[in-house]
Amino acid sequence: MTLIDNNSPIGVFDSGIGGLTVVKHLRDLLPHEDIVYFGDTARLPYGTKSEDVVKRFAFEDSHFLLEHGVKIIVVACNTVGSTAIHLLEEHLDIPVIGVMQPGADASVNKTKNKKIGVIGTSTTIRSEKYKQRIFELDNSINVVDQACPLFVPLVEEGFFEDEATHLIAKRYLEKFIENHVDTLILGCTHYPMIKNTLQRILGEDVVMVDSGEETAKVVKRYLESNNLFSSKSIKSGLKIYVSDLSHKFQEIAERFLQNSLSHIETIDFEQFLLEKGKDFRDHINKILIKDI
Amino acid sequence: MTLIDNNSPIGVFDSGIGGLTVVKHLRDLLPHEDIVYFGDTARLPYGTKSEDVVKRFAFEDSHFLLEHGVKIIVVACNTVGSTAIHLLEEHLDIPVIGVMQPGADASVNKTKNKKIGVIGTSTTIRSEKYKQRIFELDNSINVVDQACPLFVPLVEEGFFEDEATHLIAKRYLEKFIENHVDTLILGCTHYPMIKNTLQRILGEDVVMVDSGEETAKVVKRYLESNNLFSSKSIKSGLKIYVSDLSHKFQEIAERFLQNSLSHIETIDFEQFLLEKGKDFRDHINKILIKDI
Repeated sequence: MTLIDNNSPIGVFDSGIGGLTVVKHLRDLLPHEDIVYFGDTARLPYGTKSEDVVKRFAFEDSHFLLEHGVKIIVVACNTVGSTAIHLLEEHLDIPVIGVMQPGADASVNKTKNKKIGVIGTSTTIRSEKYKQRIFELDNSINVVDQACPLFVPLVEEGFFEDEATHLIAKRYLEKFIENHVDTLILGCTHYPMIKNTLQRILGEDVVMVDSGEETAKVVKRYLESNNLFSSKSIKSGLKIYVSDLSHKFQEIAERFLQNSLSHIETIDFEQFLLEKGKDFRDHINKILIKDI
Repeated sequence: MTLIDNNSPIGVFDSGIGGLTVVKHLRDLLPHEDIVYFGDTARLPYGTKSEDVVKRFAFEDSHFLLEHGVKIIVVACNTVGSTAIHLLEEHLDIPVIGVMQPGADASVNKTKNKKIGVIGTSTTIRSEKYKQRIFELDNSINVVDQACPLFVPLVEEGFFEDEATHLIAKRYLEKFIENHVDTLILGCTHYPMIKNTLQRILGEDVVMVDSGEETAKVVKRYLESNNLFSSKSIKSGLKIYVSDLSHKFQEIAERFLQNSLSHIETIDFEQFLLEKGKDFRDHINKILIKDI
């Protein structure tokens, strides 16, 4: 196990490349922090899979980052945030920050008419975790939510300001207009890429909350209050690991990151799991069984 | 290892549920054959992943079916067909039939003006396997192809006869109209579900080739000429195994199968791989390295 200190990297994982929108905000806010990113591209998407499978993947992904000596783990995947974050917080030895709580908290601060909309993958919406967090803060708020499973593939195809995307989005967003929400949580890291289309449909007055952006602010506050800032003064490094490198990865990743990519490495995740072996698997199984 | 005889089941695997359209045709044509189906829903989709990962998955899925004593393996997944079918044919001890060759062969029989279109996932189209097979049969044929990565999520969302699907399909199919193709291969098991939309765009004169339907015919001919028909006279059984059972599975699966489902079982595929152990993995690695 690598020793952890202030100059250890921040670990970020996601089911794929969407989490790079969170990395972009982390690098803007924390330019001296090294970042290790893991995108589980061989098993994406998580958002259409069962909770049990997502929980297992979340532990495996976290342990991959732990082996890179990270000082904090940012769970950029909303689907993991909605199903497994409590387990990671309980069972990992380092702090874990998800994207849902920062997004929910910001929306409560921003709404004026107490009508908040939430969009996300099917698993995220079904979990009702955004809703629950908002009610914890203010149970007089009216929350309207909608799963938008086509947004991720549309974004990955590069259909941003597109007529078909507009048509599909209009259908998904209808109920937010009917219910006069004044704040919309973009509950999936892909969605900021079609923010303009969504804004055009809902009108300029509706405030969009980018969970990734809010999360970067929370990470900064956490490092600050725990004296965990890096002591480096040079620009930080970014290492990206993926479990599969598809031909489109580089193109889409650079679009998400709004920057060019340097270090990308494909890792054989099955081999990683095989090396972790039966004990590791039994350990996860025990956690999952206790959580039912 | 289970002993194989005439009454052993037919094995079918796919990355997800799309292959059930092939199962539907198999059951129509071969009502007395038992079928074991494996859908690798925990790792789908395959169509956006790299060839190396797809090859590995193909071996793992096949070995799962072999442990159920199947007498023949039908690879319902076009993506596997385009990358790994030659490896499975070479290294498995039982016959392997993919969906690409039957689809390509049928298209060559059906075209009159020698202009054939092919649609499929990104991996399938990039592999050019449909094109290669058509040229083997008749190199004077003009083949036009197009990847349609949004069709699978649109189908899984149930957007069949839909305005957005129509718009996206119009864009994907444009080049087939420009090039006057008279035959279109539906090179993905999901696509028959939006056949009507595609037919409306291309016009009634364009012949649609459903690779799954053609494959069922080839399987029947193979069993016949090798005296491998089941001797049962009762209606066959269908066992479906998936690596993850999402909440939508049953609904979508029944739509694909055009029938209700009885036996579905979720299997823990990571556990399966762990039990197969290092020797199995080394065995696959050797095959993959030799194939580069």
